[in-house]
Amino acid sequence: MSDKDRSTGKITPRNEDYPQWYQDVIREADLAEPAKVVKGCMVIKPYGYAIWEKIQRSLDARFKETGHQNAYFPLLVPQSFITKEADHVEGFAPELAVVTHAGGEALEEPYVIRPTSETIIGHFFGKWISSHRDLPMLVNQWANVMRWELRTRMFLRTTEFLWQEGHTAHATHAEAISEVERMLGVYSEFAHTMMAMPVICGTKTASEKFAGAEQSLCIEALMQDGKALQAGTSHDLGQNFGKAFDVKFQNEAGELDYVWQTSWGVSTRLIGGLIMTHSNDDGLVLPPNLAPIHAVIVPIYRSDEERSKVLETAEALKRELQDIDLAPPRSRFRDFVEVVIDDRDLRPGAKYYHWERRGVPLRIELGPKDLAKGQVAVKMRIDTAAGTGKLFLDRNEFVATFRARLQTYQEELLAQAKQRLTERTVVIDTWDQFLEVFSGENSTFAWCHWDGTAQTEAAIKTETRVTIRCIPHAGYGPEVSPGRCIKTGQPSAQRVLMAKAY
Amino acid sequence: MSDKDRSTGKITPRNEDYPQWYQDVIREADLAEPAKVVKGCMVIKPYGYAIWEKIQRSLDARFKETGHQNAYFPLLVPQSFITKEADHVEGFAPELAVVTHAGGEALEEPYVIRPTSETIIGHFFGKWISSHRDLPMLVNQWANVMRWELRTRMFLRTTEFLWQEGHTAHATHAEAISEVERMLGVYSEFAHTMMAMPVICGTKTASEKFAGAEQSLCIEALMQDGKALQAGTSHDLGQNFGKAFDVKFQNEAGELDYVWQTSWGVSTRLIGGLIMTHSNDDGLVLPPNLAPIHAVIVPIYRSDEERSKVLETAEALKRELQDIDLAPPRSRFRDFVEVVIDDRDLRPGAKYYHWERRGVPLRIELGPKDLAKGQVAVKMRIDTAAGTGKLFLDRNEFVATFRARLQTYQEELLAQAKQRLTERTVVIDTWDQFLEVFSGENSTFAWCHWDGTAQTEAAIKTETRVTIRCIPHAGYGPEVSPGRCIKTGQPSAQRVLMAKAY
Repeated sequence: MSDKDRSTGKITPRNEDYPQWYQDVIREADLAEPAKVVKGCMVIKPYGYAIWEKIQRSLDARFKETGHQNAYFPLLVPQSFITKEADHVEGFAPELAVVTHAGGEALEEPYVIRPTSETIIGHFFGKWISSHRDLPMLVNQWANVMRWELRTRMFLRTTEFLWQEGHTAHATHAEAISEVERMLGVYSEFAHTMMAMPVICGTKTASEKFAGAEQSLCIEALMQDGKALQAGTSHDLGQNFGKAFDVKFQNEAGELDYVWQTSWGVSTRLIGGLIMTHSNDDGLVLPPNLAPIHAVIVPIYRSDEERSKVLETAEALKRELQDIDLAPPRSRFRDFVEVVIDDRDLRPGAKYYHWERRGVPLRIELGPKDLAKGQVAVKMRIDTAAGTGKLFLDRNEFVATFRARLQTYQEELLAQAKQRLTERTVVIDTWDQFLEVFSGENSTFAWCHWDGTAQTEAAIKTETRVTIRCIPHAGYGPEVSPGRCIKTGQPSAQRVLMAKAY
Repeated sequence: MSDKDRSTGKITPRNEDYPQWYQDVIREADLAEPAKVVKGCMVIKPYGYAIWEKIQRSLDARFKETGHQNAYFPLLVPQSFITKEADHVEGFAPELAVVTHAGGEALEEPYVIRPTSETIIGHFFGKWISSHRDLPMLVNQWANVMRWELRTRMFLRTTEFLWQEGHTAHATHAEAISEVERMLGVYSEFAHTMMAMPVICGTKTASEKFAGAEQSLCIEALMQDGKALQAGTSHDLGQNFGKAFDVKFQNEAGELDYVWQTSWGVSTRLIGGLIMTHSNDDGLVLPPNLAPIHAVIVPIYRSDEERSKVLETAEALKRELQDIDLAPPRSRFRDFVEVVIDDRDLRPGAKYYHWERRGVPLRIELGPKDLAKGQVAVKMRIDTAAGTGKLFLDRNEFVATFRARLQTYQEELLAQAKQRLTERTVVIDTWDQFLEVFSGENSTFAWCHWDGTAQTEAAIKTETRVTIRCIPHAGYGPEVSPGRCIKTGQPSAQRVLMAKAY
């Protein structure tokens, strides 16, 4: 057994060693662990997977509401497929895992494990689409994919990861573009509403776009170390894959044309974003909308007699709370409040500590005094307008306001994250200032002018490791006005978002 | 485009060519298609995947109710892991797909794509378990797996398939055995309640058990051609994997012991079972509990004016029906009735035909006459006590009894399947009779005496392709009484279930 993977109780403070803090939070919350025996992979443990399940079902409902249907395509892709789109192969070839043998024999043509499914799905679109009446085709797949990365980090970048990939085909470019924008909107709304994570919506530069796309839109989130996390992408594939896989349709005018495609995805990386948006030096902090456990009841007692009375009340309270359905009325799933009674043979303090590290939003202490007074002692995982310090609340009123309290807590986490985003966003106009802001490991969200060339972008990246995260969409950046490139002084039409990134 | 994969309208009758009928039903219902470009794989199309989603969420709720948590383990398994358990490697080595290259380089040790995850999960159990306090460990994984099969058939046997695999570790053998039995019970209840598919619960013979198990329990279902489908298995792994992966724990007496493990799984194969249990020469038949669409409304009209009135009523009816939640009250999901209004520019007959082939349980015809009378014309996909022929029903009463009608239809499908099982089950005592019953492609469920030896089992299989499906559990076979082996005449303690199998 490796003790390194087991809880040590220790969480390194963020300001001491941020990457270590991140690993400590994951280990102490028991979310995942590095697989080690499989290069760059991780095991997603039950508590981490429960968060992923909540992410999945919320997003899945949103995809279905916007007219998409799930399907499943093969894991293996003929190697020749990857080479059919020139940019695509250039982008993905170095990261492929290749199956060369199967059933005890060498294969005539090797297969690659899908790094993404544009090619294999393009092939099937070619079989299924022949007329404008077959369009739009709107499919999504929940799947595992594999990209052989050199440097990996749990949730943020692993060789295998879980994700969803939407793939759609349309009759016109305009329609494809509105799909790309619609799905970026879904991701952004999800990040705000469910993850309490504010994001900047924008468009990637040509150097940063998806291999094979005309344009890539993205949502970028600020992590607590000032770095950016690309949390989701939505690609306008133009007719690139349509041409590569000969996906033609007869349009309304009776002419043959190639379909216009899109693809969009988010992955288990979102859990990394969740951790680095809200958690603190005491461990994980979770927004109630994605928390697998909403409340823990810690019974306090000194005798067996006290214990049985307290547990009886705890059970009754748990039952009442578990009847609360947090999901909206027409939702496809129920989201019953999950409550744990921690009756382990441990001191209350050890239990507080345990659940604190797991980010459970609300702790209820219940002892004989509370029973006598008809009250509960409540402590929220972090202080917000939903509650500061320990609160003594009338039991029934507590139950009646439970949902509202979680909602306030959710909103406050978003407000705090927005506050951090505001505080850590700067507008920079001189290269000296730029170098200072991004010195060493430092990062922040910086709105800077850029001359629009790939050369300048590359020079900035080489020198500082800072990348252009996106060209912001309306409403996300400073007011659009021309200026001078921060690096070259050449003319620039608008500021772009710069940061170091995960 | 390959026309073979497109709807031709034609469904070969079962008695003409049963395997072709099966393929035709899948194609005409648009459930899936062979991938062709990836050996032995299939694409699960949206309508087929929607059935899988319903299967998943129902089973997943059952797993959680019985205390299991989902997790996710790596797709790739170090090749050396597979060889650690002697029987396991013997069983799976011939079917492995091997990754030899990744990131542009040859790997030092190849990985295999998981054919099942006992080995990799055994490895992690070894890291996580050290004390009886860590037990039982009850995890489940929803995943894709790969077994390089020579002969494949959509849903029933594909090189890649989707499944769930439960993996548990226990402190005692007795506890592991009750887990194995509990999960077989879950599968059997699910098959009855949700799939309307009666099953025989039993134990596999030593030759048919899982590679690496002490004992394998199974559910076996009768397909309409008399063949058996192994629909789910639950394995007592003893301490085999515990020893192979050194999974030791300190028991309550303070002694070190190996854990007792179980594993259990069902897969997309269940969809094949669903098809072959209920469908007929007109196409797919679905039990309402797993149907993605419960009812289709076909508007009937001759003029634009009629059309707008009929559609208005259809929309109102759809809204009312879609408010009906079919899920039980404390269910983790909602199961709202799904209704489609088919307003395509086609003759009503073509629409009836279309939805009939997709197995939609209930068709509603709605024309000006029905509007005038406040009625609906209803036709169930197959005649049962829930409705025979075309029914003219008062609209409001129809809505009020909709749920009950679906329930009756579900129960009747089960009753019809049970009836077929009874009719196709025989008790056989002579080898001549056996040869007659199993001549050519014929099969049936036959209760026969067997002398208990692997030699006799192998001889029967070689000569007739009939296998021992299981040794029945109490309540599933004929009364237990001794007899003489059907092949050798040697003594036998009880009858076993014999059939040809998928």
